Amino acid sequence: MLPFKTLIIVEENSPVAIYRQIANKLIGLIQQGLLQPGVFFPGSRELAAILGVHRKTIIAAYQELAIQNWVETLPRKGIRVAADLPVIKPRSFKRAGQSLPYHEPARFSFLNDVTGIDANPELRRSDIVVNDGFPDTDLAPFDLLMREYRKQLQGVYLKRLMSMRDFGGTPALKDATSLFLNDSRGLNISNEHILITRGAQMAIYIAASLILKPGDKVLVSDPNYFIADAVFTKMGARLVRIPVGAEGMDVDAIENALKKTKIKLLYIIPHHHHPTTVTMSSSRRIKLLQLIKQYQLPVIEDDYDYDFHYRNSPVLPLASASHGGNVIYIGSFTKLLAPSFRLGYMIGPANFIAQAINLKRLIDLRGDTLMEEALANMITTGDLGRHIKKSNKIYSQRCDLICQLFNEHLNHAVTFSKPQGGMALWLKFHKEYPLATIIPKALSAGLVLLGSAYYKGENEKHNGLRFGFASLKEKDMQQVVDILSLITK
Amino acid sequence: MLPFKTLIIVEENSPVAIYRQIANKLIGLIQQGLLQPGVFFPGSRELAAILGVHRKTIIAAYQELAIQNWVETLPRKGIRVAADLPVIKPRSFKRAGQSLPYHEPARFSFLNDVTGIDANPELRRSDIVVNDGFPDTDLAPFDLLMREYRKQLQGVYLKRLMSMRDFGGTPALKDATSLFLNDSRGLNISNEHILITRGAQMAIYIAASLILKPGDKVLVSDPNYFIADAVFTKMGARLVRIPVGAEGMDVDAIENALKKTKIKLLYIIPHHHHPTTVTMSSSRRIKLLQLIKQYQLPVIEDDYDYDFHYRNSPVLPLASASHGGNVIYIGSFTKLLAPSFRLGYMIGPANFIAQAINLKRLIDLRGDTLMEEALANMITTGDLGRHIKKSNKIYSQRCDLICQLFNEHLNHAVTFSKPQGGMALWLKFHKEYPLATIIPKALSAGLVLLGSAYYKGENEKHNGLRFGFASLKEKDMQQVVDILSLITK
Repeated sequence: MLPFKTLIIVEENSPVAIYRQIANKLIGLIQQGLLQPGVFFPGSRELAAILGVHRKTIIAAYQELAIQNWVETLPRKGIRVAADLPVIKPRSFKRAGQSLPYHEPARFSFLNDVTGIDANPELRRSDIVVNDGFPDTDLAPFDLLMREYRKQLQGVYLKRLMSMRDFGGTPALKDATSLFLNDSRGLNISNEHILITRGAQMAIYIAASLILKPGDKVLVSDPNYFIADAVFTKMGARLVRIPVGAEGMDVDAIENALKKTKIKLLYIIPHHHHPTTVTMSSSRRIKLLQLIKQYQLPVIEDDYDYDFHYRNSPVLPLASASHGGNVIYIGSFTKLLAPSFRLGYMIGPANFIAQAINLKRLIDLRGDTLMEEALANMITTGDLGRHIKKSNKIYSQRCDLICQLFNEHLNHAVTFSKPQGGMALWLKFHKEYPLATIIPKALSAGLVLLGSAYYKGENEKHNGLRFGFASLKEKDMQQVVDILSLITK
Repeated sequence: MLPFKTLIIVEENSPVAIYRQIANKLIGLIQQGLLQPGVFFPGSRELAAILGVHRKTIIAAYQELAIQNWVETLPRKGIRVAADLPVIKPRSFKRAGQSLPYHEPARFSFLNDVTGIDANPELRRSDIVVNDGFPDTDLAPFDLLMREYRKQLQGVYLKRLMSMRDFGGTPALKDATSLFLNDSRGLNISNEHILITRGAQMAIYIAASLILKPGDKVLVSDPNYFIADAVFTKMGARLVRIPVGAEGMDVDAIENALKKTKIKLLYIIPHHHHPTTVTMSSSRRIKLLQLIKQYQLPVIEDDYDYDFHYRNSPVLPLASASHGGNVIYIGSFTKLLAPSFRLGYMIGPANFIAQAINLKRLIDLRGDTLMEEALANMITTGDLGRHIKKSNKIYSQRCDLICQLFNEHLNHAVTFSKPQGGMALWLKFHKEYPLATIIPKALSAGLVLLGSAYYKGENEKHNGLRFGFASLKEKDMQQVVDILSLITK
């Protein structure tokens, strides 16, 4: 007989019933070949004594095994391992009961060049965190959103809302989004041109998946939003870098690239470019639109930051000009709410959007329909618009203040241009202050710089990082500047 | 001078300020080449008269154009289109102001063979909807979940929770998930083996993306969860179908396939197979585990329905037996809550999960961290466990009732096996009642059959559909059976 007392350890404090613990361990022994087909189990009284449990517990465990067809009961003989189970060569007793298949690395081949993520630093309670440019959660309209959300939970259509097939967004949110975009960006779209996604990131991924094949060439800026770079690289595409200056991406360089070689896609952030926050000039926009039409060049226009502008109206997106249907326009509601409310959209010609919806379903079966309806209501009631206006005022003041502080105290170490809007600025450190040492120094002084930093490998020349000011209070800014001054002394 | 009165139509009722409407229209005229570089605008008084608006409005519009660098102001001469803008060949007046680039199909090449979605039928208020097997939203623990969610919104760590980089799930939800899975499935995993996703679908997509290359062969059941089929097909893989019978997938057929050709992946739902609800027998499981180890065969085990079982404990997943680290295990919390709460998980060896986390970030930058924390709390307080127990009791009764009704009234038209758990049964219609006619007939009688139906193309032989009973009340079931009886008379 097997040494059941050693093999079956019962945990009294486990939330799993003891009979189930025993049944599961016995199944393990069968699966490992230690209890072979046809072998009889000890009687319930006997096993109960061995394990120190009540006999009824063993009977329940055996019943469980019987229901699951692991054992068969022979009248007056007892219970044995089902004779029709395949015979397995038993392994050593030592490993019995220790099935830890996940504790060794996978040895089958899989894609393993997807760009990694820097570890999250350990945070202390007193640390100040500077993010990539997120909205201030203290301003987020949680109450309004939760009010709308609760309405959905109590609504008479809840069940239907939840069981409908997903067409890339609830009709109400598509209606509200086209209204919102037509008003604010002059897009002239209707529902068939919209896919609702989990934030702009999913829209970039889906658009790139539909457009790119391995070996295709993609024009991107230098530097470029690094996660977009990683998406295109994952698709097997090759990146062709275009310099970005004070007027945005260099359109002459784009034209040269188009003349020289077959380009499959242009990825561009004309408004508040990520990471540099530069906005493309009007003359470059006009020239670029001509090129797009001339070369029938597919474009992903990432406009993650359109709604945040301080002094003037934002420049209209490429998507609202005449572009021959080549511009896939991507934006986000996340920045209007808070980072964990992941809602974005993709705008494109109806045939493209139809395929995007189909692909989205393979990735993410169904959206958060309740949150979508809640947001739709916030848009149509005007609550969202009012929230944007209110926060713009505050972010604009914060932008003024941080720029003033940097100018007064950090001119020796950094350069930056005051952005026209948005929630972050592009802080370039002088060569003498490499971010490779600045970031860890700041961390030990209690300042966690979490914004995207461009200083490794081909990005070493930039030595810059996104400094998200929108969620920093006045006293935090003071402290941040004090720490940065100190470590750049 | 251009016919501004015709080209610039001001909408009084638009939420966009009138000066901005005019500015945007003027930018459109510049972009279309109708207002060439260097051309002077009418004076503000003149244009105000033409358009019938106040002069101040025109001044504001011109200022907007100036700030955006579309125009330049020449002292004492007036305002003209910036001379440094590229010259564009103007198009006919007729199309001016009608930039509708999204109203024609995209003509650039893109992937256009992603499987489509059947249209949602138009619903009347009185219609009964039978879904694919969703939990009853009337039982969903919304109050508990919202309580936990609100706690997060008010928590002191809110800002940090939202600005941290995403590592495929919040630490608290990973802790709770490993606890939950170790207890209920004996998995012996820790946080490094877990990726939290938006539902099981995203986990399938990510696992398949990492494992499959174009041309690879995948073993799937016949019939198989059709969205998984579509995922593999999208990756360029070829499906090799294995029959599924009362004991689950035919393991001998799997062995033959493995002997005959190189197989890259097995996709299997051993517990409550989708669509057929069959659970794989113990003997087949043991043999399959041997094959997995012998051939080092990567496996996606989709266990979407483990927590719902009525009479006995569920059969333990393949993942908790000894499988050499080859089984990527996928499950979902969505079924435990409600369809729009999309939270699922992928379990695998640490090196695989690390890549899966990196890929997930490209697709979906950040999870709903607040909902993740809320769910984590529901798990650790035991609220989720109690909810599962409570709903299982109700679903079990509903399962009994629907089976009894089908037996009494529909034996002439359908066959089915009573499932051991889950939320749906596999309803096969006799050949005389093809679903191609049954579904529309039911619809016109007020019964909307939304469950996955297998009757087109290669699936014609199955002529079956998923009948989700879990969210049907007693009177609904009566009505459903009445309608089905009527249309199969």
